Amino acid sequence: MSLHDASVTQMSKMLRNLDAWLDKAKEHAKAKEFDVEVLVTSRLAPDQFPLVRQVQSACDSAKYAVARLSGVEAPAHPDEEKTVDELQARIRAVIAYMETVTPDAFEGASDRRVTLPFLPGKWTKGIEYFVDFAAPNFYFHVITAYAILRHNGVNLGKRDFLGHVRLYDIEA
Amino acid sequence: MSLHDASVTQMSKMLRNLDAWLDKAKEHAKAKEFDVEVLVTSRLAPDQFPLVRQVQSACDSAKYAVARLSGVEAPAHPDEEKTVDELQARIRAVIAYMETVTPDAFEGASDRRVTLPFLPGKWTKGIEYFVDFAAPNFYFHVITAYAILRHNGVNLGKRDFLGHVRLYDIEA
Repeated sequence: MSLHDASVTQMSKMLRNLDAWLDKAKEHAKAKEFDVEVLVTSRLAPDQFPLVRQVQSACDSAKYAVARLSGVEAPAHPDEEKTVDELQARIRAVIAYMETVTPDAFEGASDRRVTLPFLPGKWTKGIEYFVDFAAPNFYFHVITAYAILRHNGVNLGKRDFLGHVRLYDIEA
Repeated sequence: MSLHDASVTQMSKMLRNLDAWLDKAKEHAKAKEFDVEVLVTSRLAPDQFPLVRQVQSACDSAKYAVARLSGVEAPAHPDEEKTVDELQARIRAVIAYMETVTPDAFEGASDRRVTLPFLPGKWTKGIEYFVDFAAPNFYFHVITAYAILRHNGVNLGKRDFLGHVRLYDIEA
């Protein structure tokens, strides 16, 4: 299994899906005649982060997974977004960074020692960091964003969630 | 990256986490004096599946990922659960199956041709099936179940979500 494929390829695809869900949120707001920016601070529970923070965290989870596994430094993105357009700009900036990181930067990534700023004195092995933490944490924020939009009536379904799946034709 | 580790180890851990969230749901219902079975049919949107179906689908996603990648046939689980206890029994049955599948059954899994009953005429390569479909689909149902519980006030946080993360001490 290629960690480049599982992080850069898959996570950037999921971020593109998230970007498209936000386009659908705009369409929904227009059709229902409400201000789409209401969704930016919407949340599923009073003590859970709102959409803005879920999108920022999805972006960060993807960016840091790629940076920590490849060693290619990621750009900083201060959490200052207030609108859906600004969130989409953040998503696109992160995708642009991720796409600069080539498969060869992931050489040895599986065995790389990864340290995390919130876990001082500990390290985790590249592949275990990805499986145990980076992938579930990324999906957590992407899917919570999806759930907030879905809960607010945005017209989304499983195909919007999954996006493109690589398939081949069975020969006759 | 080992597909056994990413499917059997990680997904069975996430299912154990889900089982523990349902225990927390029972505690919450007891404390608030409501019938916990109300949660079984709770949903985030009227046209999205309720908790019962999210848990069944999380179980199926994990079970079929392991079965399709390893070739070890999975037991059938008819979708008949009506209570939280029955959902927990289903989760435990799936974990028990998954734990019978050993790493050597995943030999060649990355390149295995996987066919899906809902995609006739198509096949997908083991590793791409896992990255593009099985993992995101599994997390989709697990995290939507989490979101339904969280939305209904169950006391859950990121640690409950992630569960155990493999960490090592940095030598002095």
